[in-house]
Amino acid sequence: MTQLTTSLTWQQLKDNAASLPHMRQMFANDPQRFDKMSLSACGLLLDYSKNRVNDDTLKLLFALAEETNLPNKISAMFDGERINNTEQRAVLHTALRAKPDANMQVDGGHVVAEVQQTLAKMRQFVEQLQSGQWQGYTGKPITDIVSIGIGGSFLGPKIVTQALRPYWGKQLSCHFVANVDASSICEKLKGLNAETTLFVMSSKSFGTQETLTNTMSAKDWFIQQGGTQQDIAKHFVAVTSNVTKATEFGIDADNIFPMWDWVGGRYSLWSAIGLPIALVIGMDNFIQLLEGAHQMDEHFANAPIEQNMPVIMGLLSVLYSNFHSAQSHVILTYDHYLRGLPAYFQQLDMESNGKSVTLNGTDVDYSTGPVIWGGEGTNGQHAYHQLLHQGTALIPADFIMPLQSHNPLGGHHQQLASNCFGQTQALMQGRTYEEASAELANSSLDEDQKALIAKHKVMTGNKPSNTLLMDKLTPSTLGALIALYEHRTFVQGAIWDINSFDQWGVELGKVLGNDVLDRIAADTDATELDASSNNLINIFRHGKI
Amino acid sequence: MTQLTTSLTWQQLKDNAASLPHMRQMFANDPQRFDKMSLSACGLLLDYSKNRVNDDTLKLLFALAEETNLPNKISAMFDGERINNTEQRAVLHTALRAKPDANMQVDGGHVVAEVQQTLAKMRQFVEQLQSGQWQGYTGKPITDIVSIGIGGSFLGPKIVTQALRPYWGKQLSCHFVANVDASSICEKLKGLNAETTLFVMSSKSFGTQETLTNTMSAKDWFIQQGGTQQDIAKHFVAVTSNVTKATEFGIDADNIFPMWDWVGGRYSLWSAIGLPIALVIGMDNFIQLLEGAHQMDEHFANAPIEQNMPVIMGLLSVLYSNFHSAQSHVILTYDHYLRGLPAYFQQLDMESNGKSVTLNGTDVDYSTGPVIWGGEGTNGQHAYHQLLHQGTALIPADFIMPLQSHNPLGGHHQQLASNCFGQTQALMQGRTYEEASAELANSSLDEDQKALIAKHKVMTGNKPSNTLLMDKLTPSTLGALIALYEHRTFVQGAIWDINSFDQWGVELGKVLGNDVLDRIAADTDATELDASSNNLINIFRHGKI
Repeated sequence: MTQLTTSLTWQQLKDNAASLPHMRQMFANDPQRFDKMSLSACGLLLDYSKNRVNDDTLKLLFALAEETNLPNKISAMFDGERINNTEQRAVLHTALRAKPDANMQVDGGHVVAEVQQTLAKMRQFVEQLQSGQWQGYTGKPITDIVSIGIGGSFLGPKIVTQALRPYWGKQLSCHFVANVDASSICEKLKGLNAETTLFVMSSKSFGTQETLTNTMSAKDWFIQQGGTQQDIAKHFVAVTSNVTKATEFGIDADNIFPMWDWVGGRYSLWSAIGLPIALVIGMDNFIQLLEGAHQMDEHFANAPIEQNMPVIMGLLSVLYSNFHSAQSHVILTYDHYLRGLPAYFQQLDMESNGKSVTLNGTDVDYSTGPVIWGGEGTNGQHAYHQLLHQGTALIPADFIMPLQSHNPLGGHHQQLASNCFGQTQALMQGRTYEEASAELANSSLDEDQKALIAKHKVMTGNKPSNTLLMDKLTPSTLGALIALYEHRTFVQGAIWDINSFDQWGVELGKVLGNDVLDRIAADTDATELDASSNNLINIFRHGKI
Repeated sequence: MTQLTTSLTWQQLKDNAASLPHMRQMFANDPQRFDKMSLSACGLLLDYSKNRVNDDTLKLLFALAEETNLPNKISAMFDGERINNTEQRAVLHTALRAKPDANMQVDGGHVVAEVQQTLAKMRQFVEQLQSGQWQGYTGKPITDIVSIGIGGSFLGPKIVTQALRPYWGKQLSCHFVANVDASSICEKLKGLNAETTLFVMSSKSFGTQETLTNTMSAKDWFIQQGGTQQDIAKHFVAVTSNVTKATEFGIDADNIFPMWDWVGGRYSLWSAIGLPIALVIGMDNFIQLLEGAHQMDEHFANAPIEQNMPVIMGLLSVLYSNFHSAQSHVILTYDHYLRGLPAYFQQLDMESNGKSVTLNGTDVDYSTGPVIWGGEGTNGQHAYHQLLHQGTALIPADFIMPLQSHNPLGGHHQQLASNCFGQTQALMQGRTYEEASAELANSSLDEDQKALIAKHKVMTGNKPSNTLLMDKLTPSTLGALIALYEHRTFVQGAIWDINSFDQWGVELGKVLGNDVLDRIAADTDATELDASSNNLINIFRHGKI
C-alpha cells in the first residue's frame, strides 16, 4: 500500500464520498452554495457548486493537497527544479509567457532572455510574411501556411488557430498536416499553389517519422510544381533543435527557430511551435495569448489553495477518479470555435497522467489519469449526452462557454446558453419515478405503458459538472483557459505522486513499429512474431484480406 | 439481482476472466490462435486474437448469447417486431438497404416499396443537381450543398461524405451546420454564393430547435444576398415528416423527402437523410454503400453466432464492460478519411446503450454501454496512446485500416501499417522489468538512474485490441463497416436486455433548457431554481462574469 491510500485523509474522503446526500438536497440545504463554490480569476468564472462535495469534502481535499506537498511542488516547478526526474529536466513552459524581466534559470542559463530573443525573431518573421515583404520563388507574397508536425507540434497550433478564427488577418491561411497517411498531405495540398505556400516543419530532432516523411513529400510536391532546390529556403522554415539536418534539407539557418529541453511537446504551443498561430493572428495577439496564460500562472503560483482555480479543479478530478470510480472526464465546449479544445486537453492530460508508477518507481494502488473526451455543445446533446444522463458510470463534465458571441445573430446565443445551463441542471437534479409518473398522468397511454415509460424516464441525477464562463473568447481568455488545464493536470499528477512530464509508454510502440516496417519490406513473410502480428504483416504484404 | 448476473454462465465468465494467463503466454501456447480467432465477411477481416479470451471464454460468451436469446432477438428485429418497446416501434434500418424485392412490413405497409420509391426520387434529384439541370434563381447551376441538421441528421452524412472524399464528383461540394452557435453557420456561409447554394434541411418534426434556428438564419442570409421568397423553392429542400411546416416555409412539396418512425435518427444515414452523401458521391455509389451494409445484414442474420462478426465484437465488448471494469472503448482508424468514424460510432453506441433499466424497467445491476472515443492513427500515438499503454484502466481498442491507399505515395502507407500493427503488438505484449533493464544495460546512466527508468519503462501489456482490415476504403466496405458497428451495438443491448432504440435520457435537458431560455428572456433575474442555475442565468443576462 502506498502512503497516499493508507493516509487518514484518504480514508475520510472515502467515507465522505459514501455518505453525502444528493446534490439536490445539498442545494436545498444551503442557499449560499454558489457563493461558496465559485470563483473568478484571469477573466474566467468557475462554478463548481454542482459537484459531489460539501464543506467537509473540500476541507479534506485541501488537506490532501497539503499532505502531498502540492504547494512545494508548485514552487519547485516555477523555480526550474528538475521535477521531470526520469529525464532530469526542468519544466518551464511558464517561462515562455513570463514577463521579459523575470529571472528564470536552467543550468545558469537565463531562459527568459532566450524566450524573448525567439519572440523577437518570430515577430520579425511574422511581419515579413504578413506585409508581403517575404516573397515566394516567383516574387509573389505567401498566402498559405502548411504546418507539418505531430503531437504537441500539431494539436496546440491547430486548436488555437481554430479557436481564434475571428482574429485571423486577411493575408494568410493556415493548414495542418500530422498523420503519416498520405491522404492527409495529398488532400491539404490540393488547391494550393507552390509559389505562394510556405511550409513550417516542427520536429525537435528533425527526424520524427511522420513529420519527416510528410516534409519530404512536401518537398517533392514543391519541386514537381516548379520550385528548385535553391527555392526551398523561401518556402520551408523549421522549428527544431537539429540545425544541421534542417540546413542540409535546404532551410536557411536564419529561418530555424529553437526548441528547448525544458518545454515538453504537449506544453509547447507558447514557444516557437506557436509560429503558425502568430502567422495568422499576428504577433500582438500572440503576445495577448501568452499574457492570458501568464496571468493564470501568477494565480496558480500565488493564490491560496482554497481559492486557486487549477487546484480546485485538479482536486475535484482526483475525487472522481479515486472515490467515485470515474474512468473518464468529458469536456463540453459550448462554442463552435472551441470545438477542438477537448482533443487538446485530451493529449495534455492523458499523455501527462496516464501513468502507473510513482516518481520513485513504486506501482500505484489507485487510479491515475482518466480518459478525456468530449466535443462542442449543443451537438453532443444529440449524440452522447444520453449516456451522461442515464448510463451506468459516473462521468464528471466541464461546460465551457463565452457570454458573448463573435457572431451575435438572432436568438442563437441565448439558445446556446440555455442548453448549456439546462444540461448542468438536468445532470444535477435528475428525475425521480414520482416526477416521471406525474408527467405522464394526463397522457393517453394505458396504465401499464405509463408505468413502463416512467421507469425508463427515471434519471438518478447527482451527476457532477463544472461550468466555466468568460466574457468573450479572446487570445487572452483562451491563454488563461489553456493554462488553467495545464495546471489542473499538474495538480492531479502532484497528488498522485507521478511524473506528468515524461512519456515512456509510447516508446515501445515506436520500436516495434520500426521492426514491423522492416518485416513488411523483407523478402519473405514474417514468422517470428506472435501469430496475430505475423498474419497481419503478411496480409498487408500480399495486399489482400 | 437480475437473472443475468445470477446465471451460472455469468459466474463462470467472472472466474474465467480472473484466471486467464497473459496474452503473451496464450500466443506462445497456441500457434493456431490467429486461425481460430479471425474471420472474414463482407470485405472485412477481423482479427480478434489479441483479446483476453481462450477457447473457454468464447464458449461461455456464446452460451451467454444463447441464454439471452440473442438469435431470436436478431430475428425479431429483421421481422419488424416492435422491439423498441417504450415507443412501440419497429426497428427497420435494415429495410433501407434491403433488396428491392424483399418483403418487410410494418402495420401491413410494405416498407421496402416505400424505400425504393424514395431512392428513385433521390436519384432523380441527385441527377438534376449533378447535371446542372437544376438551376438557382439566377439560372446558375448549384455548386454548394449546405446540410442543416443535428444528431443523426448530421453525423452520418458528415462522416460518410468525409470518408468517401475520393468519390466526390466535380460538380458539388458539401458543408454541414449542426450547432445552434451562430459561429457555425456564419463561418460556413462565408465565401458561399446564394445563387449557387442549396440548403438541405433535415428534421423529422421540422422543429428541432437547432435545425430550425439555423434554417431560419440561412433563409435570412439568402434573402439578404438577393434571393426572394419565391426563390426559396429553388434553394431549400427538406427531409422531414412535417410536410405542412416545410411548405409553409417555402419548400416545394415535390422537394420534401420522407422520414419514417421505424428508422431511428442514429440509424438513418441510409434513408433520405443520406441525401447530401448521394449528392456528392452520386447515386450509384450511394447504392454501393447500401449494398455493403446489406451484405453485413445478411451475414448478421444468417451466420452462426460463433462465426458472426457483429456477435463476436459485441460479446467481446460485454466481456470488458462487465468482467474487466472497462468504462470506455477506443476506436482508432488508421486512415485519414476515416478520422470522423469514432465520433459516429460514439453517437451510435452511447445513445443506444447508455441505459440503466432493462426492457421491462428493472434497474440493471451491471455496467451497460461504455464511453466510445478515439481518432485517427498515427496522430493518437503522439497524444493519448501513453495512457492506453501505461494508464491504470483497461481500455479495449479497435484498429481499423485499409490495405491499399487512395493516395499511394512513397513509403507513407507502409509506415502507416507498421504503426498500426506495432501498436497492437505493444499493447498485447508489454514490457517486463527485466526487458526494460536489459535495454538499459549499455546506457551511460548510473545504476540508480537505470533502475529508476526501468521501472518507468515497464508496461503490463495484456491490453486487448481488435484489428479490422479491408482491401480498400470503398462505398461498399464503408457500408459494411458501419453496419457491423450498428449490429455490434445491437448485440450488446440484447445481452444487457436494454432498449437500444429509445433515448429518454435526453428529454429532461430539453425541457429544462426551454425553461432556462424563458428565464433568460424574462424581465427579472432568476430566483426559483437551484443557486447555481439561478446565478449562471443571471450572469448571462448581465453579460459579464
